[in-house]
Amino acid sequence: MASSSSYSSSPCAACKFLRRKCMPDCVFSPYFPPEETQKFVNVHKVFGASNVSKLLNEVPTYQREDAVNSLAFEAEARLKDPVYGCVGAISVLQRQVIRLQRELDATNANLIRYVYNEMPPRPPPPPPADQQSYGFCYPYQWTDPNEDNEGSNGGNM
Amino acid sequence: MASSSSYSSSPCAACKFLRRKCMPDCVFSPYFPPEETQKFVNVHKVFGASNVSKLLNEVPTYQREDAVNSLAFEAEARLKDPVYGCVGAISVLQRQVIRLQRELDATNANLIRYVYNEMPPRPPPPPPADQQSYGFCYPYQWTDPNEDNEGSNGGNM
Repeated sequence: MASSSSYSSSPCAACKFLRRKCMPDCVFSPYFPPEETQKFVNVHKVFGASNVSKLLNEVPTYQREDAVNSLAFEAEARLKDPVYGCVGAISVLQRQVIRLQRELDATNANLIRYVYNEMPPRPPPPPPADQQSYGFCYPYQWTDPNEDNEGSNGGNM
Repeated sequence: MASSSSYSSSPCAACKFLRRKCMPDCVFSPYFPPEETQKFVNVHKVFGASNVSKLLNEVPTYQREDAVNSLAFEAEARLKDPVYGCVGAISVLQRQVIRLQRELDATNANLIRYVYNEMPPRPPPPPPADQQSYGFCYPYQWTDPNEDNEGSNGGNM
């Protein structure tokens, strides 16, 4: 029954899970191939198959894959963190942006002081360990959105 | 019928919308007061009342308000942007973090060069207009998550 195509005769993950016949015009089939059951289970659990189907029908075909992927991402985040879901990631990122902007402004001010007034600048402090890498990987950074409340906009949801 | 309390005899926004009797132990009532109909309509449209009720029952009481607010935020984002929802905001913020970190590293390197080698640094460039303020207001920054693809992690959903 395994198939490499989303459009095969195997029922898609959605129809398999919902125990219904997968018709050739199934709205889920192109985005939930038979082997991606968990992706559908997550989306169904958080949004409901009916809401996802409605949303897909309102979105142009060329954007449906993006829509499904963003729904799957949100669903996974909500299942991992039922209280904040992916809004926790937004709070973490917002605080990171505010902190980096402040640090950049301070460093620029220091540099400008030297350039225009010829005052020796203080050496910049080393960046904190969590800012040394560009590789921000959001699925692992939102487990505790309250861990750092300084200067946050995250509480105004 | 207007009431200042979520626990009044007026049906909550959820029960009013679903046309059912609002019981004293209604799970929606504390978080969807009668005057906040739109908040419930959005959450119901995106997640479904039944899924929201299930989620609230799985969350400790003291975290339910945060859970409802994050659901309402996600729902509003999804209704404004059916393709990306609030995942669009995550992409925008991630790119912003990467850009700021690069800019900060470059500025720090410039400063370190001066401090340790006594080479005159180049004056820092003025920050782009969109980075001059700390006041990042996420609801208005995710309308086009594809506007800037440089160095983005946003496509790996």
